[in-house]
Amino acid sequence: MNVSEMDGGITAAEGFTAAGVAAGIKASGALDLTLIVADQPASVAAVFTTNQVQAAPVQVSREHVAASQGWARAVIVNSGCANACTGAQGLATTRATVAAVADLVGCPVEQVLVSSTGVIGVHLPVDLVVNGATAAFATLSRNGHSAARGIMTTDTGPKEFAVRVDTAAGAFRVGGIAKGAGMIEPMMATMLAFVTTDAAVAPALLDRALREVTDRTFNAITVDGECSTNDTFVALASGRSGVAIDERNYGALVDGLEAVARALALAIVRGGEGATKLVAVHVTGADSAADAMRAAKTIANSPLVKTAIHGADPNWGRLVSAAGRSGARFVLEHARVQVGPNVLFEDGQPFDDQAPAAAEYLRHAELEVHVDLGTGGAGHAVVWTCDLSAEYVRINGEYRT
Amino acid sequence: MNVSEMDGGITAAEGFTAAGVAAGIKASGALDLTLIVADQPASVAAVFTTNQVQAAPVQVSREHVAASQGWARAVIVNSGCANACTGAQGLATTRATVAAVADLVGCPVEQVLVSSTGVIGVHLPVDLVVNGATAAFATLSRNGHSAARGIMTTDTGPKEFAVRVDTAAGAFRVGGIAKGAGMIEPMMATMLAFVTTDAAVAPALLDRALREVTDRTFNAITVDGECSTNDTFVALASGRSGVAIDERNYGALVDGLEAVARALALAIVRGGEGATKLVAVHVTGADSAADAMRAAKTIANSPLVKTAIHGADPNWGRLVSAAGRSGARFVLEHARVQVGPNVLFEDGQPFDDQAPAAAEYLRHAELEVHVDLGTGGAGHAVVWTCDLSAEYVRINGEYRT
Repeated sequence: MNVSEMDGGITAAEGFTAAGVAAGIKASGALDLTLIVADQPASVAAVFTTNQVQAAPVQVSREHVAASQGWARAVIVNSGCANACTGAQGLATTRATVAAVADLVGCPVEQVLVSSTGVIGVHLPVDLVVNGATAAFATLSRNGHSAARGIMTTDTGPKEFAVRVDTAAGAFRVGGIAKGAGMIEPMMATMLAFVTTDAAVAPALLDRALREVTDRTFNAITVDGECSTNDTFVALASGRSGVAIDERNYGALVDGLEAVARALALAIVRGGEGATKLVAVHVTGADSAADAMRAAKTIANSPLVKTAIHGADPNWGRLVSAAGRSGARFVLEHARVQVGPNVLFEDGQPFDDQAPAAAEYLRHAELEVHVDLGTGGAGHAVVWTCDLSAEYVRINGEYRT
Repeated sequence: MNVSEMDGGITAAEGFTAAGVAAGIKASGALDLTLIVADQPASVAAVFTTNQVQAAPVQVSREHVAASQGWARAVIVNSGCANACTGAQGLATTRATVAAVADLVGCPVEQVLVSSTGVIGVHLPVDLVVNGATAAFATLSRNGHSAARGIMTTDTGPKEFAVRVDTAAGAFRVGGIAKGAGMIEPMMATMLAFVTTDAAVAPALLDRALREVTDRTFNAITVDGECSTNDTFVALASGRSGVAIDERNYGALVDGLEAVARALALAIVRGGEGATKLVAVHVTGADSAADAMRAAKTIANSPLVKTAIHGADPNWGRLVSAAGRSGARFVLEHARVQVGPNVLFEDGQPFDDQAPAAAEYLRHAELEVHVDLGTGGAGHAVVWTCDLSAEYVRINGEYRT
């Protein structure tokens, strides 16, 4: 089995076409609507936000995955408006959207999934979306680049990735697109991400792989600790490669999905609002994996840690303080803090002579920090985060008005 | 009973003297050491950080409050160095410090409390602290202004407040000092705050009042969600007013303590790193007070809420999204969001025509937002926070190096 990167994104797998168009939802005139269509019904699995406030499209997509028993023909996505907290009118807009797409594609309405992303609490003009869907349907192609652009909000660029998985039974492809860039600490799901494969896999097995991969990728990133109202991660499988996935080669599907999901997840962090650095936060020596994840998330979300990294300041005490307040058990006398290769604290003692080397290391664009909680336990976790810059404040103080 | 503001701070109550000096711990030459002395043993109560990482002075002060059974003569505080994560050497420095102060004052060592604040993981030069304590002892006075300055780190100014409480039994005074300005989300305690009173109150009753007041003041503020390694709130009572506090007039002590603690807590938020606005986050309609506090804290710590308020952007969807991910039960159909007097969302419907008025309101320097969780429950809470500005990033990216 071999996983290798290939060109393309959401249409890298056989059996899918896509298009992104400018539907007029964004005042800027940028692309703001993406349609993804499977040639034939594809098996589908999806995970959604755990926020108690769930946008209308999340409600409808969840309903459709259940009603179709895991089969889908199309996904319609708009950016520029989240259609969240919009009441009965918002739900009606979403239902009109999926009905229009089902008409265009010629499939039952429950085989259409839908996502929205953008400002919360603003009504989505239904005519713009329906007209946009018609225009997108007319331009569907095997080139997915416009689809990656149609789902962007404050993203600095499109996020797409694809791999080819070679197995004894033949090759299949996995490709996908995702968008960030704020309100990012996915819980059980992520911001918007869509992945297709031409492996043949039953909905239940696809669902199992999706959940397994989500925990190690999209659920292990954070930009600002904010779990949104619209988080959605959808995987579609066309079966067009002829490679059937069962228990024996399930690992190949997981590897392919994980390679794409990790690349997209890291792209979200790299492109986090105002981000200039990608930081891998490794935690070891925890009582449990859950404790390790708790400490890693607390460190990764600490504004003091994120600003110190932004300023290339080896202020490691902030890592210790964050770990200490995370709720995970922490044994200071046996703890260790490492910034890149530089050990700054070990067995209760600071090593301040390492600070200049650590400061130099922190100038890298991609870097890692490592905190051992000192319990002697085997629990470990890694979380990816970005730095916190003045640009984040500028973007989010001016986003809506 | 009547509580009225008066001039002064830590020495407003009879029976206390204080002084702040420049001991050379801060490279800038600013005041960095404060000594507070009671003329006679005062009853004392204290609460400390719940962070699992506790600085050497927190360990020693905790030990001394227990060993002295609630009596103290002096508190020695340095800024510029937290003496946290400094191992055996750090603990030895703290013990040498309290021993030197006990010698100066002429009291048992367990009647001396100690606090430090500043950078974590750097050794505190013991000779500078001991010499500084000697200098401060020589300049003790009934004017407490230098004491308020000696405990500052990134604070934009000193924080002191005092009240006179008139009761049927006579008047007593409560005054105090505090410092912020980052690593502020106290849990069961706060950053550094010291309060004195000349009421006569037994240690156990003082302790009860201190804990009661802490929950409604210092534990209800946040600047950046960071609970530090050094949080300490100490109250000392000299009894010099002749007003004895017992169960009958316990309320007068709580009112006086609370007035001072609230003023100092709000001063910490107003002076939060980079802060330009003070925001009261009111949450109602929660299943319980704990749920209300959980939702209020999540909203108050949300970087998207804090940046929107900074930019006077009435992006109320961020309030709803934060409440929805807080863990508190949230019923969207009955929820309500209010920014000042402007209702922006109610019963599942957005009122976008109120946005311009809300944007105008958000230009105030002191403002309130109100989220009703819609459960119909009576749980409510208020948390005070500040906005998140580019200046916060600048301060914290450059603090140490």
